[in-house]
Amino acid sequence: MGASGYAGRELCGIITQHPGLSLAFASANEQRGQRARVGSTEITYVATEDAPLNKAEVVFTALPHGTAAKWVGNARNVGARVVDLSADFRPGAAESSRTRAPYGLTELMRSQIPGAEIVANPGCYPTAILIALAPLLVEGRVLPGATINVSAASGVTGAGYSVRPDLQFAEVVEDFKAYAVGNEHRHILEMRAVAAELGGSEVDILFTPHLLPVARGILATITVPITEHSPDDAELWRRFYANEPFVEIADQPPSLRDVVRRNVVRLSVAKAANVRQPTLIIISAIDNLMKGAAGQAVQNANVLLGLTEQAGLPA
Amino acid sequence: MGASGYAGRELCGIITQHPGLSLAFASANEQRGQRARVGSTEITYVATEDAPLNKAEVVFTALPHGTAAKWVGNARNVGARVVDLSADFRPGAAESSRTRAPYGLTELMRSQIPGAEIVANPGCYPTAILIALAPLLVEGRVLPGATINVSAASGVTGAGYSVRPDLQFAEVVEDFKAYAVGNEHRHILEMRAVAAELGGSEVDILFTPHLLPVARGILATITVPITEHSPDDAELWRRFYANEPFVEIADQPPSLRDVVRRNVVRLSVAKAANVRQPTLIIISAIDNLMKGAAGQAVQNANVLLGLTEQAGLPA
Amino acid sequence: MGASGYAGRELCGIITQHPGLSLAFASANEQRGQRARVGSTEITYVATEDAPLNKAEVVFTALPHGTAAKWVGNARNVGARVVDLSADFRPGAAESSRTRAPYGLTELMRSQIPGAEIVANPGCYPTAILIALAPLLVEGRVLPGATINVSAASGVTGAGYSVRPDLQFAEVVEDFKAYAVGNEHRHILEMRAVAAELGGSEVDILFTPHLLPVARGILATITVPITEHSPDDAELWRRFYANEPFVEIADQPPSLRDVVRRNVVRLSVAKAANVRQPTLIIISAIDNLMKGAAGQAVQNANVLLGLTEQAGLPA
Amino acid sequence: MGASGYAGRELCGIITQHPGLSLAFASANEQRGQRARVGSTEITYVATEDAPLNKAEVVFTALPHGTAAKWVGNARNVGARVVDLSADFRPGAAESSRTRAPYGLTELMRSQIPGAEIVANPGCYPTAILIALAPLLVEGRVLPGATINVSAASGVTGAGYSVRPDLQFAEVVEDFKAYAVGNEHRHILEMRAVAAELGGSEVDILFTPHLLPVARGILATITVPITEHSPDDAELWRRFYANEPFVEIADQPPSLRDVVRRNVVRLSVAKAANVRQPTLIIISAIDNLMKGAAGQAVQNANVLLGLTEQAGLPA
Repeated sequence: MGASGYAGRELCGIITQHPGLSLAFASANEQRGQRARVGSTEITYVATEDAPLNKAEVVFTALPHGTAAKWVGNARNVGARVVDLSADFRPGAAESSRTRAPYGLTELMRSQIPGAEIVANPGCYPTAILIALAPLLVEGRVLPGATINVSAASGVTGAGYSVRPDLQFAEVVEDFKAYAVGNEHRHILEMRAVAAELGGSEVDILFTPHLLPVARGILATITVPITEHSPDDAELWRRFYANEPFVEIADQPPSLRDVVRRNVVRLSVAKAANVRQPTLIIISAIDNLMKGAAGQAVQNANVLLGLTEQAGLPA
Repeated sequence: MGASGYAGRELCGIITQHPGLSLAFASANEQRGQRARVGSTEITYVATEDAPLNKAEVVFTALPHGTAAKWVGNARNVGARVVDLSADFRPGAAESSRTRAPYGLTELMRSQIPGAEIVANPGCYPTAILIALAPLLVEGRVLPGATINVSAASGVTGAGYSVRPDLQFAEVVEDFKAYAVGNEHRHILEMRAVAAELGGSEVDILFTPHLLPVARGILATITVPITEHSPDDAELWRRFYANEPFVEIADQPPSLRDVVRRNVVRLSVAKAANVRQPTLIIISAIDNLMKGAAGQAVQNANVLLGLTEQAGLPA
Repeated sequence: MGASGYAGRELCGIITQHPGLSLAFASANEQRGQRARVGSTEITYVATEDAPLNKAEVVFTALPHGTAAKWVGNARNVGARVVDLSADFRPGAAESSRTRAPYGLTELMRSQIPGAEIVANPGCYPTAILIALAPLLVEGRVLPGATINVSAASGVTGAGYSVRPDLQFAEVVEDFKAYAVGNEHRHILEMRAVAAELGGSEVDILFTPHLLPVARGILATITVPITEHSPDDAELWRRFYANEPFVEIADQPPSLRDVVRRNVVRLSVAKAANVRQPTLIIISAIDNLMKGAAGQAVQNANVLLGLTEQAGLPA
Repeated sequence: MGASGYAGRELCGIITQHPGLSLAFASANEQRGQRARVGSTEITYVATEDAPLNKAEVVFTALPHGTAAKWVGNARNVGARVVDLSADFRPGAAESSRTRAPYGLTELMRSQIPGAEIVANPGCYPTAILIALAPLLVEGRVLPGATINVSAASGVTGAGYSVRPDLQFAEVVEDFKAYAVGNEHRHILEMRAVAAELGGSEVDILFTPHLLPVARGILATITVPITEHSPDDAELWRRFYANEPFVEIADQPPSLRDVVRRNVVRLSVAKAANVRQPTLIIISAIDNLMKGAAGQAVQNANVLLGLTEQAGLPA
């Protein structure tokens, strides 16, 4: 549902090429009746109201924040399980206190997913940032009381398929800017809640997102003040993610080019020279439409349905 | 000298339209004899060896780092004053300990320039960052012992007119990446030295630059832990730069688009919500070829020669 | 009027820096009360209804096609002269048969402009193409009965400041496509009418425009079957435009980079090898917002008002 | 061989994911010993001299024009069959008169390929243009004596992985230009030779290529004067390519976005209005690295080896 947006189309493309899934329907209210090419297949959109929910074992909802909950309920009523790509059921959101929905950051929450009725698929920025921070949080290496600084940049599809004057080509090309400056972005609540759960205590995160003149990809530059005896190289991450096919620990800082069209988080770790406070610099890159949205949604559906976790996903 | 690079061509363009300057010569060794259009004028390059230094009252040297010093000396020998755009005479560089050359961050060092024989024109990143930090440093508002975090991004002309495989169009478009990760960039020394001079004590700066898929422009996102009773809005900056035509304090975070082709630093200041340590977020934008190189060089020449400081410079 | 679109803002920028003009008002109905930076000045938009037409000696109307005629009439009623940037008064348009308005392709129609009440400012594509073709048409060198083939490409600002899904950054970047395929573009009528007037007989033009992933600039690639004894080099153009400051005949094919932000047409002429029918290939480049819209509008206003034709215009 | 260029890397990516092929080696002389990621696999380059030619059943040579013939000979000497991506064995090239190598425009030359020792893989422009023209040529619909006009534009990878000043990001972004103006491009000979073979007589083609600010993709805008009773819609093409999985006849003009990363030619056909001479406008789009190079090379290898023609190729 919501299959005409960027994440929705990416989802349809993955599903139509997935060895264990087939597309029951693709709904897009304003595009009802229209055809669209996803990957190498053509699909026809149905109206949201006409979506045959009972034909689907799993429903992916890629609807705007705030409107997803209703359709998630409708899908649940006919017995479908749901992977919700909106923020509605994520940690920190109002709905999340009323409805149990595990947070689908698959690598970190895998055990909670198989029995779930609803999976709250993570936001794109939180995916890149929490996968990068988890080893330090779990092992208690973040300097207590310190602020973790995150400067991140996203391609324009991160804003969804909204027709906005400020996202017109002539406004974005040759430009770069910060937004939500002042640490007010919606994702901060989501990141803090999960980080606190992982690390056992509150963590301050100062997050400044930027808009890149590229179509897709997120790069997060994360600086973490650490305790004296923390590791200063990538060994901790290699160990933590040793068996994860979708997390890559790189020797060189990753770039968008390394991850676009792939369902991976790729990250590098470096010790900061020339500062007194021991500090790590983690660079984390994802494709916001793959590991940051549609790819991770399918990864979660794979776990939910007992399929091979990597099925249908480009590594 | 070095007039075929990006900064050099920009300089020639400004000089040819400047009401008080005229171009004595433009040297570019490999392009000797070639013509080039700068602004609406055509110039012809002479070989470096053939540059008629004695015809120039002021020589601008836009040569590679390390090779500038020799030609600065040659220009001095025939009595010309020099604005050097290389790093050779900047604070922290070897040459700077042997030769007195005021640091041409004009707004902060204006009084030292008129009598100078050589002006060390600042680097592009330091210009954006030091103008943003100066009010806090001068007024002692930075939390002692804290690390100032700078995540900055530059268009490709920041790397100079070098023909590098990694700067080919197909490699840069739709990409974004960090470089010099680990706080090892040459500009750190320059920034620390000037920051210490402005603030009276050592300051830790953690600086991570990124390469943007745009031709020109730098945006620096700076987070500064501040003392309890520091100002939390832009008032301090408005006061500090009240009479500066080339520093703009904006209500909204500046974007590259606001500054490209203009000789200005444009910056915004915001207080960080949702963190315990009082912290300011300063966004600072410049055109790396204008205020970050050629524009500031002419601004310094204007001061050096007793011309109107704004002469010939697009605000 | 219509000062918030791309051409409108460019116009305001030129006017505010023009030595002989000052901006009486800038109207933009939906942006009424908003401020905007044009060049290095800030302006405030007034509602269209509130535009103090009587304060202006010349009114520039940059309104959507079809809605301009009414406001042109209003401006005429209070005695202002008008340079209209819409298609409403151009050759071939309905209004043009009722109202006398010389076609403001300044280089070719200069003598008709001084006494005019209304000048119909040319379309962007016709400007690039007709300036290129005029010498051949006037001198009767086009092969009778032949089709002139024009493949042209424009940056996205050529479509005006319309918020369209297909002009969003993620849709345009890394893409290129033809539109109005089949020789149905509105500009064909305008070009045919003027070409027939210049050459004295009907001319077939087959015109295929394309959308480029750039913000501004038009490049037209024009192939013209010519009579046996036609010139095969640029000499005819050099002679024809010998005294024109805004037409450049180049040895090398021009690129967008050569003309952006300049009020010029830059063109090259080459003879086609390897074909039996003698054919010329003319490449013509303009900035669609300058010589293709706002710049030429000011050029026409300069002529209209008896000012220096080049005043305020970047060559 | 030549596996570090754009086409070479694309080839390695296809081969490593091909169900019926495996990569025996990848040679790249200057990158010997270096690792590179192609698709989701890492490969290590060997020196050209060290390429174990005898291990390969088919050798793909993606070497610079002029140097391919020697290595094609070496591969032949150890019994390997060769798909050569250079121009050396294509129609019109010197080598092609000495050595029999069918022209691998698979859809048109399929029957000649199975027994071949060497296949001359077509150029990128000729692929887009000849597939579009073939039905008209074969059925004798092109107006005798007329010139076919082709204005085409290519992304920068069409120039190969050459480190050239004019292909640096800052030179290409926001620019667009024609090159090889005057109908002198190397591909003209190749196109004329094949067109004459398809149509049975000489054909004049006037070809003007342009450089696009995109990484990959070619769009050709082709205008063809036709005989009176020719078809004026796409029916002829639909019939001609009825069973071709890699040729798409579209109702709307194709854009680069429709074909990038796919091994297809996508084209549309329209009749020109407003001209006396009946003329068709064909828009043809390909990915220059896929159907224009590596994809078609694998398509040819599939035919050569008796594999399913579509094996391993994204449609």
